[in-house]
Amino acid sequence: MRKLIAGRAANISPSLTLSITAKAKKMKEEGASVIGFGAGEPDFNTPAYIIEAAKKALDKGYTKYTESSGILPLKRAICDKLKRDNGLVYDPRQIIVSNGAKHSLFNAIFALVEEGDEVVIPSPYWLTYPELVGLAGGVCVFVETLPENDFKMTPSQLEKAVTERTKLVILNSPSNPTGSVYTRKELEALGEVIVQKDLYVVSDEIYEKLIYEGEHVSIASLSDELYRRTVVVNGLSKSYAMTGWRMGYLAAAREITAAIDAVQSHATSNINTMTQYASVEALTNPQGEQFLRGMVNTFDERRRYMVERIKSIEGLDCCVPRGAFYVMMNVSKLKGKAFRGRQMEGSVAIAECLLDYGVAAVPGIAFGADDYLRLSYAISLDDIREGLDRIEKFTREVLG
Amino acid sequence: MRKLIAGRAANISPSLTLSITAKAKKMKEEGASVIGFGAGEPDFNTPAYIIEAAKKALDKGYTKYTESSGILPLKRAICDKLKRDNGLVYDPRQIIVSNGAKHSLFNAIFALVEEGDEVVIPSPYWLTYPELVGLAGGVCVFVETLPENDFKMTPSQLEKAVTERTKLVILNSPSNPTGSVYTRKELEALGEVIVQKDLYVVSDEIYEKLIYEGEHVSIASLSDELYRRTVVVNGLSKSYAMTGWRMGYLAAAREITAAIDAVQSHATSNINTMTQYASVEALTNPQGEQFLRGMVNTFDERRRYMVERIKSIEGLDCCVPRGAFYVMMNVSKLKGKAFRGRQMEGSVAIAECLLDYGVAAVPGIAFGADDYLRLSYAISLDDIREGLDRIEKFTREVLG
Repeated sequence: MRKLIAGRAANISPSLTLSITAKAKKMKEEGASVIGFGAGEPDFNTPAYIIEAAKKALDKGYTKYTESSGILPLKRAICDKLKRDNGLVYDPRQIIVSNGAKHSLFNAIFALVEEGDEVVIPSPYWLTYPELVGLAGGVCVFVETLPENDFKMTPSQLEKAVTERTKLVILNSPSNPTGSVYTRKELEALGEVIVQKDLYVVSDEIYEKLIYEGEHVSIASLSDELYRRTVVVNGLSKSYAMTGWRMGYLAAAREITAAIDAVQSHATSNINTMTQYASVEALTNPQGEQFLRGMVNTFDERRRYMVERIKSIEGLDCCVPRGAFYVMMNVSKLKGKAFRGRQMEGSVAIAECLLDYGVAAVPGIAFGADDYLRLSYAISLDDIREGLDRIEKFTREVLG
Repeated sequence: MRKLIAGRAANISPSLTLSITAKAKKMKEEGASVIGFGAGEPDFNTPAYIIEAAKKALDKGYTKYTESSGILPLKRAICDKLKRDNGLVYDPRQIIVSNGAKHSLFNAIFALVEEGDEVVIPSPYWLTYPELVGLAGGVCVFVETLPENDFKMTPSQLEKAVTERTKLVILNSPSNPTGSVYTRKELEALGEVIVQKDLYVVSDEIYEKLIYEGEHVSIASLSDELYRRTVVVNGLSKSYAMTGWRMGYLAAAREITAAIDAVQSHATSNINTMTQYASVEALTNPQGEQFLRGMVNTFDERRRYMVERIKSIEGLDCCVPRGAFYVMMNVSKLKGKAFRGRQMEGSVAIAECLLDYGVAAVPGIAFGADDYLRLSYAISLDDIREGLDRIEKFTREVLG
């Protein structure tokens, strides 16, 4: 038999964050005490009134196909949200609802990037971006951001990374994994380069509502030129604790959404129908504000504790994340050190050794940053305390 | 600004069946009496016990991410179904659950087909197949099946269509749009060519449970060789009236599902979580048999009426569909004729003129068969009667 798997699919790596979460889960099931810092979703349940809306939709028989890009009331609710929160004016034909923001990212990249196009990705990056660019036949150009710049790409870094072949820049503010939040000024400066160099932007704003310092600004809102050039990606997963519902969306120029609509009509068609109705409720019910405030306060408390604690451990360090729910913990001083007879060459080895202490964290190499482990604080403060106790002991053992 | 949309996305056509359904819906909303023969989903609601299972899942807080390829209990239920109904033995790692069978087809084609690979598609075909092949960079080779062969591809037709570049054959039994059901013998004969020519198969079996004459056979069950070479695609949309839930799945050799799993983990991740739990209920609750029997009997009654009625109208004809819920109505005698001053060059013009009589049908050209209109019988018998009355009058007016 000849070659089975197409090149694009043969070269992809399974999502490493998901696999670490699975590993921790398995160890737990086998009775081990493991603090899992891998969580990529809020440890809150979806608000009850959203669940009720889903049930009501089921009772009404909303179990049939819908328009492949989403029902009109949902698109309208999304337009209202984008106007209210982001100062962005779209009409419903500029909205595509997909199976999670991940799917929206796939759609955007798949529609814009073709064989040989270069895509600028600030590093550390969310691990799915390069895989999606690869799937589309594009070439990733990573821009290594610095901790002293709060892991943010500067305009001159962007400028240097751009070539004749550059088509797209992926921005992610607040960022997974670094928690960085770009300011309006920083985005304006990047925007100038983007317009001048004739680039497009995919702006992943899924963590928009989880900001503890500063404010969220969508680069699409900064000028008409940037509006035309930007695909805004967002969804309900993080803001309404709706990860399992799989509801993401994108907003863009009509030419882009028309192409994506056609692709999605053949590739997946609409997302789950009752979820669409529940999402209308999520986006319009004023109770959402209160839910969100509670969640943000909880995350913020954990964040402060975590940062303080990490900084207090000799040999470890971190930047202060301003959004999302992750801390990039600098473990560069552990690199090359031995643990129980094993030389720890990089973040994967460190993460594996740390499992011996009952702590699961995601190796930074997954995000292009081998000096780091990513710790999520979407787990209880008690677990965070216990986990950092263990990390402290581990670090002491390693550094002696 | 330079070229915006990537070639793959720029060349795709939006799904024509969906757009016709939308058109009929709009006319109705505007107060016109329109019989819509475009329906691609059962006109039954999802059984109540499945809806209850979804609500229970919501109450249990199943609103979080799951394994990207689906929860284990669901994969096990799918394995049981494939063994029980199709004599196919898979382990759960060979199953990928996706956002509808459409998404499973996308995944299969995306993982197997690359630039320049040829894919054999018997025509008339479901309109999404060629679009997916095109998206993957493949080249469609259509095999025109004949009404005298009940629209089924013969082994010698397949053999003639195969070249050095042929990678894949897409089979769809029962077929949308023709309703053809391949017999075991016919599949065995095709299977011989497939093995001899070293091809793979995507076997779309979504209409499996809607058969009125004959039995369903999965080509994967015919030999170990064919098992290895076949991706079986199925889902709950048609058998359990669950179209809006978006639950499809595929089963294949582990090497194939491993690649698809990696792609899906980055492109969409898991489908709606509560739907997965509801799907376990759908696949395991014995009430499903009874629901299905009722639905099949209803469809069968409509089918018989429709076929008889079409054959009785002078100038029209059809083959007897044995499965699914569509009839391909032969309108070749209307082609080239005039209607109210308009020359009807093909199926699109005929379908448009027919709208004047308050009947919406899908032009056969969408399926590669310009001599036909596709009529769905997933609508009430009363509507079918009224619709065929109108078609009869239309035909009389055209043929004089």
